[in-house]
Amino acid sequence: MNVQKKLEDLGRKVLSEIERGENPNIEIPIRSLSNVKYDEKTGMLTIGDKVAKRYFFNIAHAKSFMQTTLVAAFCKELKESGLHTSLRDLFYALKRTLPNSQENTFNEQNESDSIIVDLEVALDVLREQLNLNADVRGRIVGDIIIEDRGDEIDLSKLGSGGLAIPSNVEDMKFKKVKAKGILVIEKNAAFERLHEDKFWQKNKLILITTQGQAARGARRMIQRLSQEFNLPVYVFTDSDSYGWYIYSVIKHGSISLSHVSERLGTPSAKFLGLTISDIDKFDLNQWTIKAEEVDIKRAQEMLNYPWFKSPAWQKELKLMIQRKIKAELESLSGRGLRFVTETYLPTKFKEQDFLD
Amino acid sequence: MNVQKKLEDLGRKVLSEIERGENPNIEIPIRSLSNVKYDEKTGMLTIGDKVAKRYFFNIAHAKSFMQTTLVAAFCKELKESGLHTSLRDLFYALKRTLPNSQENTFNEQNESDSIIVDLEVALDVLREQLNLNADVRGRIVGDIIIEDRGDEIDLSKLGSGGLAIPSNVEDMKFKKVKAKGILVIEKNAAFERLHEDKFWQKNKLILITTQGQAARGARRMIQRLSQEFNLPVYVFTDSDSYGWYIYSVIKHGSISLSHVSERLGTPSAKFLGLTISDIDKFDLNQWTIKAEEVDIKRAQEMLNYPWFKSPAWQKELKLMIQRKIKAELESLSGRGLRFVTETYLPTKFKEQDFLD
Repeated sequence: MNVQKKLEDLGRKVLSEIERGENPNIEIPIRSLSNVKYDEKTGMLTIGDKVAKRYFFNIAHAKSFMQTTLVAAFCKELKESGLHTSLRDLFYALKRTLPNSQENTFNEQNESDSIIVDLEVALDVLREQLNLNADVRGRIVGDIIIEDRGDEIDLSKLGSGGLAIPSNVEDMKFKKVKAKGILVIEKNAAFERLHEDKFWQKNKLILITTQGQAARGARRMIQRLSQEFNLPVYVFTDSDSYGWYIYSVIKHGSISLSHVSERLGTPSAKFLGLTISDIDKFDLNQWTIKAEEVDIKRAQEMLNYPWFKSPAWQKELKLMIQRKIKAELESLSGRGLRFVTETYLPTKFKEQDFLD
Repeated sequence: MNVQKKLEDLGRKVLSEIERGENPNIEIPIRSLSNVKYDEKTGMLTIGDKVAKRYFFNIAHAKSFMQTTLVAAFCKELKESGLHTSLRDLFYALKRTLPNSQENTFNEQNESDSIIVDLEVALDVLREQLNLNADVRGRIVGDIIIEDRGDEIDLSKLGSGGLAIPSNVEDMKFKKVKAKGILVIEKNAAFERLHEDKFWQKNKLILITTQGQAARGARRMIQRLSQEFNLPVYVFTDSDSYGWYIYSVIKHGSISLSHVSERLGTPSAKFLGLTISDIDKFDLNQWTIKAEEVDIKRAQEMLNYPWFKSPAWQKELKLMIQRKIKAELESLSGRGLRFVTETYLPTKFKEQDFLD
């Protein structure tokens, strides 16, 4: 169903309740941890079916009811005008003091952010479909031609910089995709190294750097390319809990955004490296770093996540906890600047040495 | 003079000192605050002429002498091979334990980073010219055609994302530039808003977002475009000390990188907004934020900087200190999402209401 229609239906429902003299309410699925579960079948974190009703005539609900209708009305205007905006701009656009009162519609941005997530869940839409842009981060190169806002863009001909992944890739069209897979890289430095060696061309891969934790635009782009062209996804991060979590979010979704896993997650993604085992296999011991308390603690938590239960992952997590070491992508440069493109990656791909 | 030649000359000088039985040394201009000054004439922070000699036969210097020659030799290899790499990769590539000792060439990255800056100053080159890539951040759109790594890229046809500004723009060629100025925007959300309204097309402007403090690639790109095509530069940031400092670094350079101001600074840049005066002029009082202690303290320091001495800047800094308020770019959305493109920016440009 069309997003504008969903917003209108929400308004009509509330209106008809008012006309019938009922207490108007909006149903919002509960987003707390108790209602988030890991779905073994799809390989994704998903939201359960517990729902709360937000009533207008309820002192505890009245303000958030008002906020919900304000945000929904604003999003409907965005859809009608075709404008896009950011979460922070929405906050400013809706923040005001109610007439004859000291009461603000919103005091802090986290209030409007939270309502936006409520609407995403309640209407089963992405905030990008509500014309709200998320943070941008990430770059892409490869043998692809896309169409975005009427421009046809050849991602194999963008020099050293690559395309800045937009915050919103909903309306992007993929005109031509000549690739056998997608290599997702945590860090820009490694991405640049691979790009300079034209690794994507030689190996028929699309290269994406997330520049840290993947922004929603990057996650959605990975998912769309993977699903629409049946491409395998390989994730390449530092050998530490943070890097492995980046992989996990790309693959399974995140706990806080479990309601959109289905639209942002790529359960078929595989972890390429770095693993702790890689450190021995590729003789990187000289360039490891001592794992901090926080790394160890995080790894211990991950040991218990159902989506890290494969024997291979359990082994790597335990190795890190036992040996108390981690390693960065850049440690491969200890073996020479071209070690990553000439030895490490070719070996991993040849041996299909991936974690799942 | 060619960069590779400079590196070779450095090596030859040291070698000939060894052959003559002298104590080999490298001259490094001093980078401490005492040797940084503001040059009224050029409008840039520059490094003075105090120089220190680093000797091999001096217990206090021997290690940094060794480090300097290691980094210089590595950069010479980079130039010869045509490879580029990051500061962190360089650190890993050079980190090792010296034979028959417990002594590492480098223990932490800040040691090699510091040597790289030494070499920049000593050889009067940019680290980018040593094939070392800095952090990447920033996006650009506009009526420009560039050539980068053999690709011809039309920056007016890159959809909603724009070109990711590369870390290294030294070898980029500008094939066609049809613009009357450059608008530099601190935040990506405002950049996207302007881009969506095709503000750059209607106003013949190049749009650049720095996404926070400007990375070196973005600063160099602004300078090159401005100098090579005689384009005025307008900087558009939050109305707070941090935003104003972003402007200041783009224009005058930074204290810590004063030796490269000449290659990264754009002294002709003007500040477009937001100013504290804009808050009244454009009726934004409802959306201001209370300035924190750190904002006020920073503004008080800036009052004393010679490059903030113009009456207009003194007025704005004092206004902030007195009124203890600040405002974000997004506050303009309080007046409606198109207020920035339809009212604010046109008014500022029409009245030439800029700070210098």
